[in-house]
Amino acid sequence: MSALESVLVVGTGLIGTSIALCLREQGVTVYLTDRDAAAVRLARELGAGIEWHPGRPADLAPGVAWHPGRPVDLAIIAVPPHVVAEQLAQLQRAGAARFYTDVASVKALPLRLAGELGCDLTTYVAGHPLAGRERSGPAAARADLFLGRPWALCPTEETSPDALELLRGLVKLCGGEAVEVDAVQHDKAVALVSHAPHVAASAVAARLADAPAAALGLAGPGVRDVTRVAAGDPGLWTGILSGNALPVADVLEAVAADLAAAAAALRASAAPVPPSEEAAAAGTAMSTVTDLLHRGVAGTGRIPGKHGGPARTYAVVQVIIGDRPGELARLFQVAEETGVNIEDVRLEHAPGLPLGAADLFVQPEAAAPLSEALRAHGWHLP
Amino acid sequence: MSALESVLVVGTGLIGTSIALCLREQGVTVYLTDRDAAAVRLARELGAGIEWHPGRPADLAPGVAWHPGRPVDLAIIAVPPHVVAEQLAQLQRAGAARFYTDVASVKALPLRLAGELGCDLTTYVAGHPLAGRERSGPAAARADLFLGRPWALCPTEETSPDALELLRGLVKLCGGEAVEVDAVQHDKAVALVSHAPHVAASAVAARLADAPAAALGLAGPGVRDVTRVAAGDPGLWTGILSGNALPVADVLEAVAADLAAAAAALRASAAPVPPSEEAAAAGTAMSTVTDLLHRGVAGTGRIPGKHGGPARTYAVVQVIIGDRPGELARLFQVAEETGVNIEDVRLEHAPGLPLGAADLFVQPEAAAPLSEALRAHGWHLP
Repeated sequence: MSALESVLVVGTGLIGTSIALCLREQGVTVYLTDRDAAAVRLARELGAGIEWHPGRPADLAPGVAWHPGRPVDLAIIAVPPHVVAEQLAQLQRAGAARFYTDVASVKALPLRLAGELGCDLTTYVAGHPLAGRERSGPAAARADLFLGRPWALCPTEETSPDALELLRGLVKLCGGEAVEVDAVQHDKAVALVSHAPHVAASAVAARLADAPAAALGLAGPGVRDVTRVAAGDPGLWTGILSGNALPVADVLEAVAADLAAAAAALRASAAPVPPSEEAAAAGTAMSTVTDLLHRGVAGTGRIPGKHGGPARTYAVVQVIIGDRPGELARLFQVAEETGVNIEDVRLEHAPGLPLGAADLFVQPEAAAPLSEALRAHGWHLP
Repeated sequence: MSALESVLVVGTGLIGTSIALCLREQGVTVYLTDRDAAAVRLARELGAGIEWHPGRPADLAPGVAWHPGRPVDLAIIAVPPHVVAEQLAQLQRAGAARFYTDVASVKALPLRLAGELGCDLTTYVAGHPLAGRERSGPAAARADLFLGRPWALCPTEETSPDALELLRGLVKLCGGEAVEVDAVQHDKAVALVSHAPHVAASAVAARLADAPAAALGLAGPGVRDVTRVAAGDPGLWTGILSGNALPVADVLEAVAADLAAAAAALRASAAPVPPSEEAAAAGTAMSTVTDLLHRGVAGTGRIPGKHGGPARTYAVVQVIIGDRPGELARLFQVAEETGVNIEDVRLEHAPGLPLGAADLFVQPEAAAPLSEALRAHGWHLP
């Protein structure tokens, strides 16, 4: 197998442009194309590569690069899930590349459509880098977006060993961790850990759209966390959900059933019964709710934490801070002098006041020395 | 109305102990009691007050404070919602205080039960400070827990003006913002912004409890946010939900219905139809999902942000950081020198690698000078 020397990125959104930036840093020649001329121009200006024009050279302005004249090593199709296969067929007809992949967040659909369109499946490996941001578009792209993140590859029986090897090389160049997984299993997994949670967050947030203003006045950090992802682009998400319809529907039905059962149990717990049976009846009904809460605790405990390992328990050191430039700098300065690494930090602002608390997450053994050092420097630890 | 000079805190959990700590800082005499002797001892050792013993002085070890001999100004009942009224009745029978309040997260239930038990409702104001933490118990208490947070007060027609005035004074002493609201409206509001979101998070997390390990390997920050609150104590939450059963059931039913409708729409979008009608049928079905996503975006936009105002949009400056002590200190040092206030910070760790990105949230006009200063100091901004 030859090395990855030239790549064509079709679709210069967040993911496509991020891969391009990363490959450019590694010295790979990158051609860019997008149906949105502004997006491809922005990606080019960010240093992601040179524009690729499959069309007639006569149309081109002087000095603009076009089709390299021979197939590139790899075409990376970074377009919405339902148009991946069409794009693949078109590129293969043009002989654009030796190998092909895509980066859509669902995998069974593009593979099925590619088969239906008669694409050559020996040179195509369906892929999905598990990386994303709340922002989209080329301006949000970063070369390190894939660093240490899983990158699913879904080879089939038809995939040639050379194609798979080239793709493993791409993932490695981007700093990702290749995870080879069957396309159907992939889609079920992302339905569970990404697509259905997004819809559930939307449904919770949707209740707030028409809520009385006074109710919103009682909102705190909890509901902000639960609903944060629901701020994502509805158009983008409709495409993703539509491309993974059945696995997402399975999870949503189970979640809806649990919530309906919890609602029924709550109603039953509040229903009038003879006083002698009241406590027992309410207790039986509420056990459905308690059980759901326990299953929830078990589920959160299985989500991997930092550094890919199992979720870790850090100690939390809380410090009261003012809302002025330099407060955090001074705080972290003390941590540095004490030789303590801050693993994570969360600022809790007190609404309405220029004061808040910083939760510093540190290794359990570092909590006592850090607290002592902060107190010695005059910080207020509640 | 006389000032608040002596207080009895019944229940030295997170909220009770936090109020006690705060009042001690203001010079108020605080008596503490709890059915859990270890909890009250811990609260006392944290400086929250002195132990109160309603019982027989003969039982007491020498030097331990007991009943002050005359009613305290205010008894703060910080026990689970369903036992508030019982506790109130008992304290009123003993003539423990001139006025009474509670801090339970539901308000209609304790008021109704207090009426049924024949409590004196002129001296009782139901209250609910909107503050909490993922941790519970006296060890997690902080004097500043209520700073700038809403504190609901639910006076009724029977409430005496003196009682309400004393309660307003308590909220002010604790740094909270008194919000006077009808008990029923209060309960509907917290069902929307706290109780139902908690159950929804549990239902999403519950799906992960039995998921294949490989699926969890594809989990990212999104599902971590959605499910974070679901790690809370099931016993505590069963009590809260049971005390607000009908308003929570109303919200959960609406959320469950939206999720079931989304699931049905997803199934319909994937159902086989004649090819000529395929796109149209899928589009119609998916419009239900798109609509839910849009309502979700609208809902998230209504959640107030920092400082109690409407949600603000900060600019985000991203910086690549190493996982070593001092990286953040140096970063914030640059911000300080540039005169830029970091409004919020979020660390994105790259799983498996000692590298990550810090998202620095700043006022939009501060983003460019900060980026420039960071680059000038050799930081890598992707």
